[in-house]
Amino acid sequence: MSGTLYGLGIGPGDPELITLKAHAILRRVPVIAYPAPEQGESLARRIVAAHLPGGQREIVIRMPLDAARFPAREVYDEAAHEIRTTLDRGDDVAALCEGDPFLYGSFAYLFARLAATHKVIVVPGVSSLTAAAAAAGQPLALQRDVLTVIPAPLSDDEIRRRLIATDSAAIMKLGRHVGRVRSLLGELGLSQRAHYIEHATMTSQMVLPLAEAPDPAPYFSMILVMSDGALRR
Amino acid sequence: MSGTLYGLGIGPGDPELITLKAHAILRRVPVIAYPAPEQGESLARRIVAAHLPGGQREIVIRMPLDAARFPAREVYDEAAHEIRTTLDRGDDVAALCEGDPFLYGSFAYLFARLAATHKVIVVPGVSSLTAAAAAAGQPLALQRDVLTVIPAPLSDDEIRRRLIATDSAAIMKLGRHVGRVRSLLGELGLSQRAHYIEHATMTSQMVLPLAEAPDPAPYFSMILVMSDGALRR
Repeated sequence: MSGTLYGLGIGPGDPELITLKAHAILRRVPVIAYPAPEQGESLARRIVAAHLPGGQREIVIRMPLDAARFPAREVYDEAAHEIRTTLDRGDDVAALCEGDPFLYGSFAYLFARLAATHKVIVVPGVSSLTAAAAAAGQPLALQRDVLTVIPAPLSDDEIRRRLIATDSAAIMKLGRHVGRVRSLLGELGLSQRAHYIEHATMTSQMVLPLAEAPDPAPYFSMILVMSDGALRR
Repeated sequence: MSGTLYGLGIGPGDPELITLKAHAILRRVPVIAYPAPEQGESLARRIVAAHLPGGQREIVIRMPLDAARFPAREVYDEAAHEIRTTLDRGDDVAALCEGDPFLYGSFAYLFARLAATHKVIVVPGVSSLTAAAAAAGQPLALQRDVLTVIPAPLSDDEIRRRLIATDSAAIMKLGRHVGRVRSLLGELGLSQRAHYIEHATMTSQMVLPLAEAPDPAPYFSMILVMSDGALRR
């Protein structure tokens, strides 16, 4: 009988923000798989390191640094092949996903390759979106607010249109777009409601006013435009 | 010394989808507070029931059924007063929040009344948003997708404009608006990408095609318009 692939949401960074369910699966499966940079430590593995029982096989999915090649189709093809072989032997595999597997997660690449032929169970996790709101110490969305998640690589006009039509926003994938996003928020009068959050819930967590956001920003960062806080009813 | 108020994300419904962190706080605090209907059982309390150590004091925040009075200002004033008195005695209080406290959570009403004068720590939780995507078994947002959370009580035109400008969407607070939302999704050619999810991760979970969504819908339900699934890079 074929094994099960778990898409395991392990939360935003604090090892204690993993769910009881993910924790139990993590300790039970014989094989774990996780993304890692081309060289060096995997953040996903680091998040769960204290929970690992020891003795598990580890499938390391090393992503090439070269942005033009990311996400390299061959890397996921190869990882999917290794996971498929493991499942077909009858072993369960837990793919570690920072945050939540189905919310901008790279797990989608494994899911697309394996879900049609193998049993896949997704365990939702705490997203960096709400972790960042907790770090900023303010409600992100209330009542009848519209909340929009906007990737920073979109064009100025695309970002502007979304910001105008929303009450709250999360702007992700900041990278080298911080200056541009800051200008747009200023132009729309949203600077005061915007916070920059880096590494939410990790020991390296930083929350900064928009003006002090680093440019470029690291991968695990976002800008939140909080609800204006008026409780309307 | 004053106690700490925890805004405790307890997840979407499955008792195992609480985090280790929330679980530890839940078992440690002398007092818990949670919303409940005017009569009958609290869903929040039911989610954590198996985790409670016993012997805690419970502050029950009973919400009036009458929609015109919800959220009744006096109910939150009274609850905040009781929590404040408890904190001032030096006792910690955990306010149980379904999903995440800062993402459309009623915790905002307590936060608004107590955060300026008392220590408040928010523990993020698994949101019903990603729980519903896991239930539907498809990625909600990928790569450079824009994701928009849209409250169904908005006008047809407001909903239409947001749906046109987004890649993925979650439509919440469906209530009596299901038929109207279904028509709008059909008009925009989005019906095939839309799923109706009720009570995600609870034993009563249901996932239905849009055409079969009940009208009116219960409180813990939403319609997700999934990413078109094209992995663009």
